[in-house]
This record gives sequence, C-alpha cells and structure tokens, in this order.
Amino acid sequence: MFDGRMAQKAAENLKKLREEKPLVHNITNFVVMNYTANALLACGASPVMAHAQEEVEDMVSFAGALVLNIGTLTPYWIESMLKAGKRANELKTPVILDPVGSGATKLRTESAKRLIDEIEISVVRGNASEVLSLAHQDSRTKGVDSIHSVDDAADAAVILANELNTTLAITGAVDLITDGNLIYRVSNGHELMGYVTGTGCTATVIIGAFLAIDNNPVEATTTALAYFGFAGEKAATHTDVPGSFQTALLDALYTIDNTQMEEGAKIQIQ
Amino acid sequence: MFDGRMAQKAAENLKKLREEKPLVHNITNFVVMNYTANALLACGASPVMAHAQEEVEDMVSFAGALVLNIGTLTPYWIESMLKAGKRANELKTPVILDPVGSGATKLRTESAKRLIDEIEISVVRGNASEVLSLAHQDSRTKGVDSIHSVDDAADAAVILANELNTTLAITGAVDLITDGNLIYRVSNGHELMGYVTGTGCTATVIIGAFLAIDNNPVEATTTALAYFGFAGEKAATHTDVPGSFQTALLDALYTIDNTQMEEGAKIQIQ
Amino acid sequence: MFDGRMAQKAAENLKKLREEKPLVHNITNFVVMNYTANALLACGASPVMAHAQEEVEDMVSFAGALVLNIGTLTPYWIESMLKAGKRANELKTPVILDPVGSGATKLRTESAKRLIDEIEISVVRGNASEVLSLAHQDSRTKGVDSIHSVDDAADAAVILANELNTTLAITGAVDLITDGNLIYRVSNGHELMGYVTGTGCTATVIIGAFLAIDNNPVEATTTALAYFGFAGEKAATHTDVPGSFQTALLDALYTIDNTQMEEGAKIQIQ
Repeated sequence: MFDGRMAQKAAENLKKLREEKPLVHNITNFVVMNYTANALLACGASPVMAHAQEEVEDMVSFAGALVLNIGTLTPYWIESMLKAGKRANELKTPVILDPVGSGATKLRTESAKRLIDEIEISVVRGNASEVLSLAHQDSRTKGVDSIHSVDDAADAAVILANELNTTLAITGAVDLITDGNLIYRVSNGHELMGYVTGTGCTATVIIGAFLAIDNNPVEATTTALAYFGFAGEKAATHTDVPGSFQTALLDALYTIDNTQMEEGAKIQIQ
Repeated sequence: MFDGRMAQKAAENLKKLREEKPLVHNITNFVVMNYTANALLACGASPVMAHAQEEVEDMVSFAGALVLNIGTLTPYWIESMLKAGKRANELKTPVILDPVGSGATKLRTESAKRLIDEIEISVVRGNASEVLSLAHQDSRTKGVDSIHSVDDAADAAVILANELNTTLAITGAVDLITDGNLIYRVSNGHELMGYVTGTGCTATVIIGAFLAIDNNPVEATTTALAYFGFAGEKAATHTDVPGSFQTALLDALYTIDNTQMEEGAKIQIQ
Repeated sequence: MFDGRMAQKAAENLKKLREEKPLVHNITNFVVMNYTANALLACGASPVMAHAQEEVEDMVSFAGALVLNIGTLTPYWIESMLKAGKRANELKTPVILDPVGSGATKLRTESAKRLIDEIEISVVRGNASEVLSLAHQDSRTKGVDSIHSVDDAADAAVILANELNTTLAITGAVDLITDGNLIYRVSNGHELMGYVTGTGCTATVIIGAFLAIDNNPVEATTTALAYFGFAGEKAATHTDVPGSFQTALLDALYTIDNTQMEEGAKIQIQ
C-alpha cells in the first residue's frame, strides 16, 4: 500500500536536514570517503571523517549521528568504532552500521557482530547477505538459512530486527526496512547505481544524516532511502553511463526540492 | 587597494609552474588524496603521496614542496610528518601545513602545534578557527579570544604570524594572507566551493605548488589563492550544481591562461 | 606488424569479462581506490578492497585475480600483500604487481623486489623506470643501466622478463608487453591520461580483470592495455580537459562494444 504520509515526511525530513545541516561523523572505508563526504555536502549535511582512537570520543560529541562502515576494516579501526560508538550511546547520538562484506570473511562477520553486541545501534544497512549474516545461530535456524524468496527475506529480517533490537534496512532493487514491527518497502532507485562504487555506503551516510534530524529510526531510514533512490532516478534522466552518473547523482541530491521529493517517493507500508 | 603587480605575478607564477612542473610531496588525509592529486596535475604540477616513516625522508628529497595535512591524522602519521618536515627543513624545501580541525579536538590542536614547534613551516592555511587555534595562551589573550569582526581576525592573524614566524592564510569568502607585516586579501572564489569536500585542502596543495616555484611565501600564497578562487569562478560559469562543479573546477585549473589570470585576480594589499 | 588476431582477442576478452564479471581483489593505494573500483565496475568486473592481515587470505579465495599496488605502501601493507599473494599462488589465482615508485625510494624498490621474490607474479605493470628498477645487479649490467632508446628498453625488458619469469608491461606513449619471448606493442592511448591521477594503476586493475578470464598472461595484458588505451581515445573525443576526461574515461570503459574494440585495437607483434 502506497504510504502518502511517508512521502510527505520524506519531503519534511529533507527540508529539516537542509535547515539544520547536522554534522555526521564517519568512521568508514578508504574507498568511499571522498564520495560519501560529497554526498553529505550535497544533501545539506556536514561530514567529518576521523578515526584516531585519541580523538573519536571528542569528535563524536559534536556530531548529530555516527556512521560506522567496515568496508576496509582492520582491528585498529574496529576499536575506534567501539570507542566512538560507546561515547555516542552515552550522548544519545544515533549510530548506524554498514556491515560491508559481513558474511564473506570471518573478520568482517565477527567485527560486525561485536559492534552490534557492544554498541546500541539504531540502524543497520546492508544487502541481504550482509544483514542476515548478523543473525545468531538460533535465529538462523528459524529464518536466515532458508531464504528462497523476498517474502522469506522479510520474515527473516523481522525476526532479526527483534533479536538485535534495531532497525534493519536491506537494500536492493526494492529496499526493505523494518524495526521488527513495521515493514516499509522503497522502490525508488536505478540500476546504474550498481555501477558506481560505494552507492550502498552512500545510502548509509544519508540515513545517518536523516537520523540526526528525525528520532524515529524506521521513518528516518525509509525516507532517506526514498530520497537517495529518487536521486538515482533523477540522475538517470541526465545520463546512461556510469562515470557521468556518479557526478549526476551528487547533483540530484543537491537539486531535489521538497515538492519533487513528495511526488517522487515510492514508499509502501506492509 | 587593488594590487596590479600581484595580479601580474599570479599570471607569472602560473606560467612558471607549468614550465617547471614541480613535484609536490603530500602527507595528507584519506578523503582528499585523489582530488588534490588531480588538482596538482591539472595545475601542471606533479603529485606524490607517501607517508611510510621508512621513506618520507627519501621522498621529500625529490620534492619542490612538502604539504602536511592533518585531516585524518593518527600519531603514526604525525611522526611521518615530523620526519619529512625536518628533512625538508635541512634541504630548504618549503613546508605548508593545513591544520584541519585544529581547535576541534585535543589531538588535532596539539598535533598541529607540535608540527609548528618542531618544523619550520613557510605557510599555514586553514579557516579562521583552525588558524587562530594555533595561538599560544599569551597571544590568545591579546587577540584570538576577542574576535568580533574581520578586522579583529586580521589583527589576530598579524600577531600570530609574528609569534609563529610564518605566513598565515585564513581562507573564507575573502582570503586573508599575512606574514605579520604585509596583509593581502583575495576575493576570488565561489560559494559552490563549500559544497565540494576538500576544497580547502586543495587550496593548500596549490599553495604548495606555488611555493615550489616562488620563494616569497606571502606572494606565492596570495597568488595561489587568487588562481584557485578564480578557477572556482570559472567553474561556476559552467554549472551550478556540486557534482558537476567538482569536475569543472579541475577543468578550470587546467584551462586558465596567463591573460585570464592577470585579468581575473582580485588581490588587494592593505 | 599489426596483429589482427590479437585485436579479435581483445574483443573476445572484453565480451568474456562482461559475461563472467570476475571479482578482483585489490590491495592498493589510498589515492586510487575509488577510481580503480569504479573502473572495474565500468568494465563489468567486481572490485573488492581488503588489506587486513586477518582476512586477506579469506578474501582472495573468492577472487579471480589479485592486484598488488605499492603506491602508498607501509611495511604492514606489504605483509598483507605477501599473505594474500601466497594464498593466491596456492589457489592458482593470478597476481599482478604495480610497483609504483620502485626505484625512487629504497623502501619501494626493496618491497617490490621482495614481493617478486616471494610470490609468483603473473604480470608486472609500471613505467620504464619502475619496471627496470626490479632487475638484479647482474641483469642491470647487461641491460638496464644502458637504455638509450625504446629498442634498448625492449631488450632490457626481455632479459628481465626471463630473469623474473613473469610478463612485463612497460606502459607509456606506446606500451611494451613481453613474457621474455613474445613482444607486443600497444599504441592505443591519449596524452590526457597523464593528467588524471592513477591511470597507470587503473591500467593495472584492468589487466587484473583480464587475467581473471584469460589464462595467457601476455595476451591478457596486451588486450587489456589495448582496451584501456582505446577507452582513453574515446574519452578524448568527448572532452579535452582533465576533470571531464576522468569521468569520460569511465564512461568509455562502459560503452565500448566488441566491434569497436576489434576495430580500435592498435596491437603490433614484433
């Protein structure tokens, strides 16, 4: 069912973001640092990248949200994420985790799980295999190991969101967002986004920016993904090749106005 | 007062840079490495990024200038900067410091101060709060803590340039450059530069390139900032959105010719 | 002599690459991570960047090729490259080395040599001074120290390829590829590629992608360089300035089709 209220909220959140210009603290991977910083600026937010263990607790205290992304993790960086995340929790600053490659290597899976165990995380965003790799063995037997359809993934995500007590965003052709109770689906987006490195990571930082101005995690996440996906659609009206698309996507993040956002959001509530 | 001689010198420095193609050694942050390397190439200079403690002294010996930027600092990187900076001093190679975020965290402020204490630095470039955070307590009481206007900032910068025995560049809508004696102001630039990450860091590397071919720090800095700001103005004639602007700015650095530079420079001497 | 069979093979390899979409594991430098990841996506391959010693052996086991690039090396990263490279050797996964800056500093030269000594490397790609710096003293006396012409470089490369038992690609205005027996030359390319940072590193990752689908190293390398150089030529038909060229080069990697590739390849066998 199309959710008109959420389309409206997407526009309101975008407006609020551009007014409040929250600082988003990123401890992220080397591949996407430049692009995600530019995406945050294009949205109207303000990025900072800082990972030294000596300063992450100081830095996060200025931020409206903390983004943790394990894309080029080492144990040092995970420790930095833990320090920053714990401080963020004390300050009630929302934390979002992008468990890049969780499920692929033991280091990634264990690091992602450790972050979730030791930090209160508002939102986890990843693709289906990354997100579902975070399940403990018992929930895996209930859901994760037996995914044969999108509906199975939704069932598994609901179970897992309850187990981890967080909001999960599984992004793909259609994005699935659930806090274990509500289930939203966002069908904005464009296939060229798969030809630009770090579009997943960029979705994550935009969710981070929305979390900084909307304290409802499932709504912040859903509206952020509608905005980002809609920017992809707008970019694809300008070009059909990936180098130019990477640039056009930043341009679209900057130019989408509130009316376009409300009209363009494709959000369904289950 | 408009300074026609400096406009002429901006054009001459640009010509010299393109002829001599100096190597600029950067120990800088992860976010801007790609963009600043491309900016140096677009100017006609040659970039190298190297930070291993085992090689920075070797690498800086080939360079015409050394750029130190603490944007994603850790203690290891600061040690590398100290090694490279000391070797640069022995070789009389100019060093420029970009104290990114100094004043925001203790690690950044202390690291920036340590670099200034232990290395002879030709130029420091940052925004007002970064640059003025470098003041010792005694000069702070004289100037830094009581900034209520642009003129106050200028007074504080003159005091601080004398205290630190260096040239300071405080960049913003109007850039202020002082060696503690002369004061230049550059009003080139465009507001879209604030929507591209690392434009401040890019200003710094261009100053680095100019220092490699002009041994007068205050003039090298002033002319470099006029060139970079003018490139921003040129880029903004091609686009009004930030993704495209990021690209157009590199294009403009490459295409500005000497005549355009001399006519476009907006440099005032106080 | 123009080699029509290799032009055909360039087209076939490109087709195969887009069908098989191999994963390319990169342990590379900070400057080019984003751009080379995007280049791999634009080609049709799939990039992963991972350098933690705890996971590189796991990660490389999923990959069709391993790219090692020492552009911003530290001893830690070299150890990671050794671990990944040895595991790749066990798995018969091809390894390509980009010895960025070898010959410039002792750390780089020694690290590159150590990688070649301890890992079986299918292809080394660099400029002439980087590649020829890898010679041992005895071969240096025979060839490397007496290069006065392109033909001398070719002679030195043949000697060195035999000594190192690998395929060498010396890229420049004309690329020279030899396995110590056959010698190919590729004259595709455009001078604007010299104004974009990391085009050499990008050539390397594209060779990596071709190695993943063609188990003949000298042919994979030659066809990859023809493809990349041809993409540079195509990009230069769209723009003559470097920022835009950087984008157009990704676009061209994506749009070149098999017919264009076969017609555009400028490959000669000696």
